[in-house]
Amino acid sequence: MATVTNGKKVAPEAEHPRKAFGLAAHDSSGVLSPFAFSRRNNRDDDVTIKILYCGICHTDLHNIKNEWKNTIYPIVPGHEIVGEVSEVGSKVERFKVGDKVGVGCLAGSCRSCAGCTTGFENFCPLPILTYNSKDPEDGTVTYGGYSDMIVVNQDFVISMPENLPLDKAAPLLCAGITVYTPMKYHGLNAPGKHLGVVGLGGLGHVAVKFGKAFGMKVTVISSSPSKEKEAIERLGADAFLVTSNPEQMKAAIFSMDGIIDTVSASHSVPPLLALLKPNGKMIMVGLPEKPMEIPAFSLVLGAKMLAGSCIGGLKDTQEMIDFAGKHNLTADIELISADYVNKAIERLIKADVRYRFVIDIANTLKSNI
Amino acid sequence: MATVTNGKKVAPEAEHPRKAFGLAAHDSSGVLSPFAFSRRNNRDDDVTIKILYCGICHTDLHNIKNEWKNTIYPIVPGHEIVGEVSEVGSKVERFKVGDKVGVGCLAGSCRSCAGCTTGFENFCPLPILTYNSKDPEDGTVTYGGYSDMIVVNQDFVISMPENLPLDKAAPLLCAGITVYTPMKYHGLNAPGKHLGVVGLGGLGHVAVKFGKAFGMKVTVISSSPSKEKEAIERLGADAFLVTSNPEQMKAAIFSMDGIIDTVSASHSVPPLLALLKPNGKMIMVGLPEKPMEIPAFSLVLGAKMLAGSCIGGLKDTQEMIDFAGKHNLTADIELISADYVNKAIERLIKADVRYRFVIDIANTLKSNI
Repeated sequence: MATVTNGKKVAPEAEHPRKAFGLAAHDSSGVLSPFAFSRRNNRDDDVTIKILYCGICHTDLHNIKNEWKNTIYPIVPGHEIVGEVSEVGSKVERFKVGDKVGVGCLAGSCRSCAGCTTGFENFCPLPILTYNSKDPEDGTVTYGGYSDMIVVNQDFVISMPENLPLDKAAPLLCAGITVYTPMKYHGLNAPGKHLGVVGLGGLGHVAVKFGKAFGMKVTVISSSPSKEKEAIERLGADAFLVTSNPEQMKAAIFSMDGIIDTVSASHSVPPLLALLKPNGKMIMVGLPEKPMEIPAFSLVLGAKMLAGSCIGGLKDTQEMIDFAGKHNLTADIELISADYVNKAIERLIKADVRYRFVIDIANTLKSNI
Repeated sequence: MATVTNGKKVAPEAEHPRKAFGLAAHDSSGVLSPFAFSRRNNRDDDVTIKILYCGICHTDLHNIKNEWKNTIYPIVPGHEIVGEVSEVGSKVERFKVGDKVGVGCLAGSCRSCAGCTTGFENFCPLPILTYNSKDPEDGTVTYGGYSDMIVVNQDFVISMPENLPLDKAAPLLCAGITVYTPMKYHGLNAPGKHLGVVGLGGLGHVAVKFGKAFGMKVTVISSSPSKEKEAIERLGADAFLVTSNPEQMKAAIFSMDGIIDTVSASHSVPPLLALLKPNGKMIMVGLPEKPMEIPAFSLVLGAKMLAGSCIGGLKDTQEMIDFAGKHNLTADIELISADYVNKAIERLIKADVRYRFVIDIANTLKSNI
C-alpha cells in the first residue's frame, strides 16, 4: 500500500517497481535537477514508452515555479512527449512494440462524465494530467516527460504519423491541439476565411501553420514590428499587423473572421475585437494573469464572440496529428540537451526561443545519480 | 431641396408633405412633448402605417437623454411599432391596406454589404434606424413610433400574426428579436437544454417565454429574491437563482448550456460563467456602461464563450414573430396613454414596470398643437 508523506502518496516498489530517471524541480525556485523515481508496471491496457523527445511548454514553467499554487514537489514536468513503444499490455490492440507514439497533457480521465463520453476528455472534472496530478487508482502523483520512460493507458496514447520528424512533432501534442481545437469547433478551418493570430510564440507560430494548411488568409498580429519578416518569410503568413500602429489597426477593422489569441501577457482585448467582422470569433488560448476589460459594446455591436479554449480531446488530438502528417506540418524548434534545460527555462521567460524548446531525451538525459 | 439647420436636414413640404404628429424630446432633459412634423409621401415600395401601439424600450431612454452622445434633437423615439396599413405603393406585393404590421429598430439599410445580402441587416454599417438616423436618400432624420403614422420601405415591415393582441406583441419587435436571435444562432433553442436568464425586465421576461416555448429548462438568475414568485408562477420559469446566495450559486455550477444576460447595470460576469457547462455560451444583450472584468481562466477552462448580440435581421424578425404567433407568446405589458409617457419614463428608470410600457397611440395620442 502506498504511504503518504506531506500529502503526497509515495508508491512503494511493489506498486511502482520500475526504475525511472528524469529532471525534477523540488521547490518554487523551479530549478530542475536529476531525479530518480519509479513508474508502475505495465498493466493490461497500458503502453510503456521509451521517451525520445519532450517539448518545453510555458505551462511547465508555471508549474515548476508553483505559480498556480497547486504544484506537488518534486515535480517532473513535460507533456509534449514522443517516443517509441517498448511494451504493451495484453489488451492493447492499437499499438505494438516499436511504434512511434505521443502523449499530450492528459494521461487519464474519469471515463464517465459528459466530457469523457463525448470525446472531450479535456473537460473532465477529474482529469489525470500527465504530470502533477493524482492518479485516483493508487493515489500516486504523475510524473511527466522530462524523463526516460512513461507508462500510459492506451486510450491516452497518440499514434504519430511516419513522415513527421518526431522532435519537431512533439510540440503539436500540446501547442498543436491547443490551437487546432478552437479552429475546428469555431469554424476557423475554412479555406478563404481570414484568421488573425495574436502573438508569435510556441502556440502562435503553430496557429499560423494550421491556418495556412486549412487554406486560410492568415494575419499575424503582434506588438513587435521586428517579427514581420519572420512571420511572412519563415512562417508563410499573408500579412502582419502591429498593434501599436493605429493606422494599420484602423485599416484592418471588420476584416477578420476569427482571431486566435495566444498571448499570456496582459494586453488590451477590445482593439482586437474591433478587427473582427460581425459574428466574428476571438478565442483566447493564453492565460493573462489580470482579468481582461471587455466593454459590452465591443461584443454586442456586431454580435461578436470571445471564447476560451483548453487543449482538446483525444480523438481530436489524433485527428490533429494526422492532419499535420498529411500537410507535413511541424513546429519550428530548438533541440536542446537535457543539461541545458534550466538555461532554456530562463530563455523561455524572456520569450527568447524560435519557437519551442524540445529536449533530446534519449540522446542526452543521462543518470548521474 | 432640403435645407440644413444645425446639422439637421429639414425636409420642405415638397419632400415630406404629409402631416404627422408625435411626442418629441427637444433636449437632454429627455422630456417628451407634443410635436408636429411631416413624413414623406408613400413611394412605390413603401407602406404607410397608421400606428396603433408603440412599446417603450430602454434604448428610447438612452436616446432622449443623449446618453450615447449621438442624439439629433428633436427626437421622436419608438421602435416597437405595430399598426395597420393605410396605403401601399405600386410595387408592394406583401401587404395591402388593412393588414396588421410591425416595424422594429430598422427602417432601412445599405442593401449591399455582407450583412444586408445574407439576412443580417442588423450588421449593416450604414443602417437607417427607425428613429434618430439620417436617411441617406434625402438626408432627413428619421422619426419613430411615438407618433400617429409612419412610412417605411416594405422590406422593413413585418407581418403580424392574426392571433396575437397587437399591444402585447409590440415589444417583440425589439425585445423579442433581441433575445430570439442569439438563442437561434447559439443553439439555445433546443428542447431539454438548460437556459439561464439574467435579469427579469423587458428583455428577460421575454427570454423566459421563448426558452419555455423552445421546450427548454429555464432558470431565472436575479439579484432580487423578491422576483422568485413572479418568475416561476407568472412567467413559467422552472427555477430561480439569487446571485447573492453563494450556496445556490455553488450548487448551480456547471449546470447550464447557455445564459442570456439582459442586465444593463454593471454586474460581475465570472460567477455567471461558472454556471455554464463546458462549451457553454453566455450572451450579453444588455449594455453595462463599465467594461466587464473577465479573467481568461473563466473562459479557457471549460472552453466557454461570452458573446454579444444586437437585435436581428428582417427574415429572423418575421420568423420570430411567426413563432410567437404559433406559441401565443407575447410580452407582459402595462398599456399607457400618451400623456403618461414622461411618468412612464421616470418609472422605467427605476425598473418599476411589469415588464414593458406600451403606448396606446391610436386611442390616446391627440394633437393639441
